[in-house]
Amino acid sequence: MKTQVAIIGAGPSGLLLGQLLSKAGIDNVILERQTPEYVLGRIRAGVLEQGMVDLLREAGVNERMEQEGLIHEGFELALDDRLEHIDLKTLTGGKTVMVYGQTEVTRDLMEARTAGNGKSFYQTSNVALHDLKTSAPYITFDHNGERHRLDCDYIAGCDGFHGVSRKSIPEGVLTEFERVYPFGWLGLLADTPPVHEELIYARHERGFALCSMRSSTRTRYYVQVPATEKVEDWSDERFWEELRSRLPAEQAAKLVTGPSLEKSIAPLRSFVVEPMQYGHLFLLGDAAHIVPPTGAKGLNLAASDVNTMFRILVKVYREGRTDLLEKYSEVCLRRIWKAERFSWWMTSMLHDFPENDAFTKRMLQTELEYFVGSEAGRKTIAENYVGLPYEDIE
Amino acid sequence: MKTQVAIIGAGPSGLLLGQLLSKAGIDNVILERQTPEYVLGRIRAGVLEQGMVDLLREAGVNERMEQEGLIHEGFELALDDRLEHIDLKTLTGGKTVMVYGQTEVTRDLMEARTAGNGKSFYQTSNVALHDLKTSAPYITFDHNGERHRLDCDYIAGCDGFHGVSRKSIPEGVLTEFERVYPFGWLGLLADTPPVHEELIYARHERGFALCSMRSSTRTRYYVQVPATEKVEDWSDERFWEELRSRLPAEQAAKLVTGPSLEKSIAPLRSFVVEPMQYGHLFLLGDAAHIVPPTGAKGLNLAASDVNTMFRILVKVYREGRTDLLEKYSEVCLRRIWKAERFSWWMTSMLHDFPENDAFTKRMLQTELEYFVGSEAGRKTIAENYVGLPYEDIE
Repeated sequence: MKTQVAIIGAGPSGLLLGQLLSKAGIDNVILERQTPEYVLGRIRAGVLEQGMVDLLREAGVNERMEQEGLIHEGFELALDDRLEHIDLKTLTGGKTVMVYGQTEVTRDLMEARTAGNGKSFYQTSNVALHDLKTSAPYITFDHNGERHRLDCDYIAGCDGFHGVSRKSIPEGVLTEFERVYPFGWLGLLADTPPVHEELIYARHERGFALCSMRSSTRTRYYVQVPATEKVEDWSDERFWEELRSRLPAEQAAKLVTGPSLEKSIAPLRSFVVEPMQYGHLFLLGDAAHIVPPTGAKGLNLAASDVNTMFRILVKVYREGRTDLLEKYSEVCLRRIWKAERFSWWMTSMLHDFPENDAFTKRMLQTELEYFVGSEAGRKTIAENYVGLPYEDIE
Repeated sequence: MKTQVAIIGAGPSGLLLGQLLSKAGIDNVILERQTPEYVLGRIRAGVLEQGMVDLLREAGVNERMEQEGLIHEGFELALDDRLEHIDLKTLTGGKTVMVYGQTEVTRDLMEARTAGNGKSFYQTSNVALHDLKTSAPYITFDHNGERHRLDCDYIAGCDGFHGVSRKSIPEGVLTEFERVYPFGWLGLLADTPPVHEELIYARHERGFALCSMRSSTRTRYYVQVPATEKVEDWSDERFWEELRSRLPAEQAAKLVTGPSLEKSIAPLRSFVVEPMQYGHLFLLGDAAHIVPPTGAKGLNLAASDVNTMFRILVKVYREGRTDLLEKYSEVCLRRIWKAERFSWWMTSMLHDFPENDAFTKRMLQTELEYFVGSEAGRKTIAENYVGLPYEDIE
C-alpha cells in the first residue's frame, strides 16, 4: 500500500491534517490505535482560537460549528470575591474565541473523512516506523489480524504524548523540556445551565477553579486538587461544594448543580521536544508538546502545527519546495514556546503552589493584579488568549 | 528640644521629606549617624522617574538637575547580539526618565537644607525611639558627647535597611517578605564617555550587564557576579573584558575603558515589611523595602513614600486629618508591591540563575522575547520603568 502522507493518530490533529491534504489533492492514510467511539469518548478542551476556526473553515468542516458553537468575546477572572472582565474583542481589535468541544470538532472531521472516502485504519496495532532518514520511509502495522506495509513520502506523527511517533526517534536526537505541576484538575461534566455566560477562571486561596461550558445546557467545571488526589474520594456533592467555595458570592449563589456525566482528574504538565522533525517524520500537537490546560492552548497549538505542516506540504508537492521541510520545526517552535509561556504564566498566576514562599506568593498575586489593572497588561492576556498569529513558513 | 516631625536619616528620602515639610511650614529635625561627606560618598542609582523629578521641583531643588540631568526617552535591551529599543516616550504617551545621580540629588538637598537653616544633627549615636504608641513620642541621642532628647509629634524613619527605626518596632508586629538572589552586581565608576547614549540592560549567557552613565563623561557599568565573589579578584582589566564579552559586537567594539574611580559589589535583595507604621513611627524607603537595582526603582520608591508621607502630614497639620495616618502603610504598599514585582521581573528576565532548570530558563527567555516583540508587552515594560502613577492618599 502506498500514499503520499501517512498520518499516525485520528484525533483532531490527524483528522484535520488529513482533511486539508485531501482537499488539496494530496493522498493520505490515517492509522489509529483505538476505535472511533473511543476517540470520541475523550473529554477535552473546548475553546477554539480564531486561527483554528479559520482553519476548520478552510477544511470545510465548519457547518455545525457555526450553528452550535458559542462565540465568546471575553472571559472573567475571579480574584477572590470580585470578577474582572477581560474583553477580548475590544482588547485585540476585534478577535474572539469559539466555544465548541474538541469532541464535536473530532466528530465533524470524522464525518467529513467518511464522506470524502478518506482512507483510515482504526484499531491498528504493532505500528512501527521504518527508514525515517531515507526518502522512502514506510510503516508496518497489524489490522484485523493481518500485517500491512504502508509506503509513503512523509509521516505525520499526530498520535499524542504516549504515541509511537516520538518514541521512534532514536535516543539522543531530541532535547526534552518538562515541568510537572504538583496538582491536577478534577473535572466534572453535567447537563446544567452555565453559571455565567462567559468562562470564569477563578484564583482562590483554596485553589484554582474554572467554570466552562460546552453549550447553553452542558457545563464543564474544574477544581484544582493535589496531584495525589483520587477521583473516588470526590462525590458529586463534594465537588459542587468545593467549586462553590472558590467562586465569588454572586456566582456561588447562582450555581446550578446536577449529577455528573463524567468526572476525572487530569495531571498538569508542560512539555516540549526539540526538534519536531526526524528525517521524513514530523511531530504535531501532543506528540511534541503538552501545555497545562489553563489558557486553553493544547488543541489550538496542535491546529497551528497542522497549519504549518499543511502549508509546507502543499509547497512541497506543488512547487518542489522540499527545503521548507527543514524549517517545519523552527517555525512551529516559535509559536509553541510562546503558548507554553502563556499556559505556564496563567497556571502560575491562578493556582495555589504550596511550595511557594511568602515572597513568591506575593509576587504572583501582585503580577496578576498589575496585569488586570493595566490596559497594556490586559492586552497581553487577551492577545495570547485569542491566539498569537500563525507564523509564516518562509 | 521639640519639633513637629523628627526625621531619622539624612539620605535623599530624609532630606527630601525635610525640605518639603519646611517649605510647607512644618517644623522638622533630621538626625544622621554619619558625616555629610560619608553620605555623599555612597555611589547609588541614577535614574529618576517623572514623579520624583516633579517632587524635586515641588521641593525647589531642581535647578542643577534641570541643567545637568540627562533626559532619557528610552533604553536598550541587549538580547545576546542584538539591541531592542524600549521607546519610553512613545510607549507611555510622553513620559521620560531623568539620569541624575543619587549623590547629586543628595548634594542639592543638603545645600537647600543649609540655605533654609533646617536643623540637622550629623554623627549622632545611641539613637533610641521612645513612646511610639503614644501621642508624645520622643527620641534620645548622643551628639558631640552630649545626650539629647527630641520631643515630636511624629517620627519618619528614613534610615535605611540597617537603621534603628525598623528595629525599634517590637518583634511580632511586622511581617517580612524577602528574597535573596544568588548573585551580586560588580559596579565600576569611570571617567569615560558612555558606550551608548541610552542605558543598555544586557541579557547574556555569561550573565547580566548594565551600561549606565552619570553624565556625558562619567560612566557606571555593572556585571552580574556570583554572590561569593570578592572585589579584590577583579582588576579593572578583568572587569572591562568581562563587560565587553556580554555586549553585542557593535557596542563591545565601541566601549571606551579607563581606570576605575570606584569599584564595589552590591548584593541583590527583595525585601518588604508590612505594615510600615507603628504608632507615631512611619517607615520610608529602604527602612521598609529593598528592591534589586534592575529597573532602577530603589530611590524612586523612597521618593513615592516621601510623597505619601508629606501629603498626609500636610493634611494632618492643616486640616486635622489624623485619620489619614492610618492609611499611610496601605497607600504606600500598593505601589511598593508593584515596583517590587517589576524589579523582580526585570531581575528574573535578565540574569542568569544557575539553579533554574532547562524548562524555566526557556520560559524566562520566551517571556522576555514575547514582551519585547509585543506592543502591549513593551508598554508594560515602559509604564513600569517610567514609574506607575503615585497613589492618592484618600
